[in-house]
Amino acid sequence: MSGDACVIGLGSMGYGAAASLLRAGKRVRGVDVRPDVLQRFAGAGGVPAATPEEGARGAAVLFTFVVNADQTEEVLFGPNGAAATLGRGGVVVACATVPPLFAEKLSERLGAMGVLMLDAPVSGGAAKAEAGEMTIMASGPQEAFARAQPFLDAIATKVYRLGDKPGTGSRVKMVNQLLAGVHIAAAAEAMALGMRAGIDGKVLYEVISNSAGSSWMFQNRVPHIIDNDFKPRSAVDIFVKDLGIVLETGEALTMTLPIAAAAHRQFKTASARGLGREDDAAVFKLYGEKA
Amino acid sequence: MSGDACVIGLGSMGYGAAASLLRAGKRVRGVDVRPDVLQRFAGAGGVPAATPEEGARGAAVLFTFVVNADQTEEVLFGPNGAAATLGRGGVVVACATVPPLFAEKLSERLGAMGVLMLDAPVSGGAAKAEAGEMTIMASGPQEAFARAQPFLDAIATKVYRLGDKPGTGSRVKMVNQLLAGVHIAAAAEAMALGMRAGIDGKVLYEVISNSAGSSWMFQNRVPHIIDNDFKPRSAVDIFVKDLGIVLETGEALTMTLPIAAAAHRQFKTASARGLGREDDAAVFKLYGEKA
Repeated sequence: MSGDACVIGLGSMGYGAAASLLRAGKRVRGVDVRPDVLQRFAGAGGVPAATPEEGARGAAVLFTFVVNADQTEEVLFGPNGAAATLGRGGVVVACATVPPLFAEKLSERLGAMGVLMLDAPVSGGAAKAEAGEMTIMASGPQEAFARAQPFLDAIATKVYRLGDKPGTGSRVKMVNQLLAGVHIAAAAEAMALGMRAGIDGKVLYEVISNSAGSSWMFQNRVPHIIDNDFKPRSAVDIFVKDLGIVLETGEALTMTLPIAAAAHRQFKTASARGLGREDDAAVFKLYGEKA
Repeated sequence: MSGDACVIGLGSMGYGAAASLLRAGKRVRGVDVRPDVLQRFAGAGGVPAATPEEGARGAAVLFTFVVNADQTEEVLFGPNGAAATLGRGGVVVACATVPPLFAEKLSERLGAMGVLMLDAPVSGGAAKAEAGEMTIMASGPQEAFARAQPFLDAIATKVYRLGDKPGTGSRVKMVNQLLAGVHIAAAAEAMALGMRAGIDGKVLYEVISNSAGSSWMFQNRVPHIIDNDFKPRSAVDIFVKDLGIVLETGEALTMTLPIAAAAHRQFKTASARGLGREDDAAVFKLYGEKA
């Protein structure tokens, strides 16, 4: 069993990782609270497990692709948690976006049990995840990298090794999320302004995608706005959380972050208006425009 | 003389356009208030002119690459202005970023004199301008496009034809500038947070350039921050102006634009602290970090 992987959390990123591991010939156990997702996973050749404890038993590498720090703690240390069965020498690859200090403490706690950890948030979106082409920004002990590398290579085209200190991966991810969240909020605001001024949304998309105002998020999210399609690939509430981490960390470092704060306010307002589970591009709706 | 071009304003974008026109075999007259720039232009094969009036005499196409609406009006209609000598059938290609309503009025005023106008803001930065690879977002009468096209093709790889109404080009540019300004301010804020948290600037640049947090501006401006090099390619005060146009237009459309407003406040604060003529990436200095 020593070459097995376990993936906890089969959402858009986790499912993509699990599917990529299967394609690479790994044996993969999967854990998720949704029976339909587990069934799809089984159909793709994966082995569903009922609990993190069961999924982790004897696994070489365990990925946590849950939503946040609380869930990461829960699946590792809660009832039927994975940490107990993973065993000494196992490697946890912690992929959720979490506060950097949480990542540091988690690594200590696992280390005390003989379990190695990579602080390894990911980027790239659902399509890249599905294709095995994520970006991973990871830090942790060399030994953890050595054991996890073949698994990381199966799910990512870029694995940034950011040194041996847990927390570094999460810090880089936090900076990425500041930008990602601001760029989504700005894309929504810019499209609303342009459309209110009478310009066709598709024209704005085409011209700006080829101009200095473009961003990864503009290119990725504006089609959701134009198509008036807000089924969640990544939800508004994710950025309520991630920009919350950014602002808390800024606070702890005595920094004012006015751009991030303005974007955070937009995601919080959207969430308060009942849009929390819609696609994050639904912040567009705050401006009262129709695509 | 009917095939001659005149370029008024030989800053980084205008000089690039003039040089590209020369490379394409056009005869080009250039107007600028700085003697050293005119000398460089002459050395490249251009013909310096002392005033807009002199430069415009009999030109087929006249580009205004000045900074704003006031300067555009001044060089066309002020003392020794170009409009009088350009002549009926001449085409003004108005490239400065200006309020959309200004572009509409300018077109009317020129039209009354028999002069055609393209509302034709540009994007791409100094390097693209130099290479003849700008993006132009233009609107105006078909006849103006027909006459200007060979000149536009010499300076741009993408010429978006946005219909026959002046104002549309400037509206699309305004939306682009909202994004560009926010992305610069966000890039500065993100880099400051990451560096304060102990991450090396070059590492942040490398990882985020390949992640979902990337933007055209992040990739273009962050090297200025890392190299601590704030000599102006495009200055802080340009975004004080351009985001000002965005906010005024939003106001006129009864829209609140909180992300643009937050970025505008950063550029205004930077300008108030004496950084107005530094590179726009100097908003980074507001965070008190050192590269």
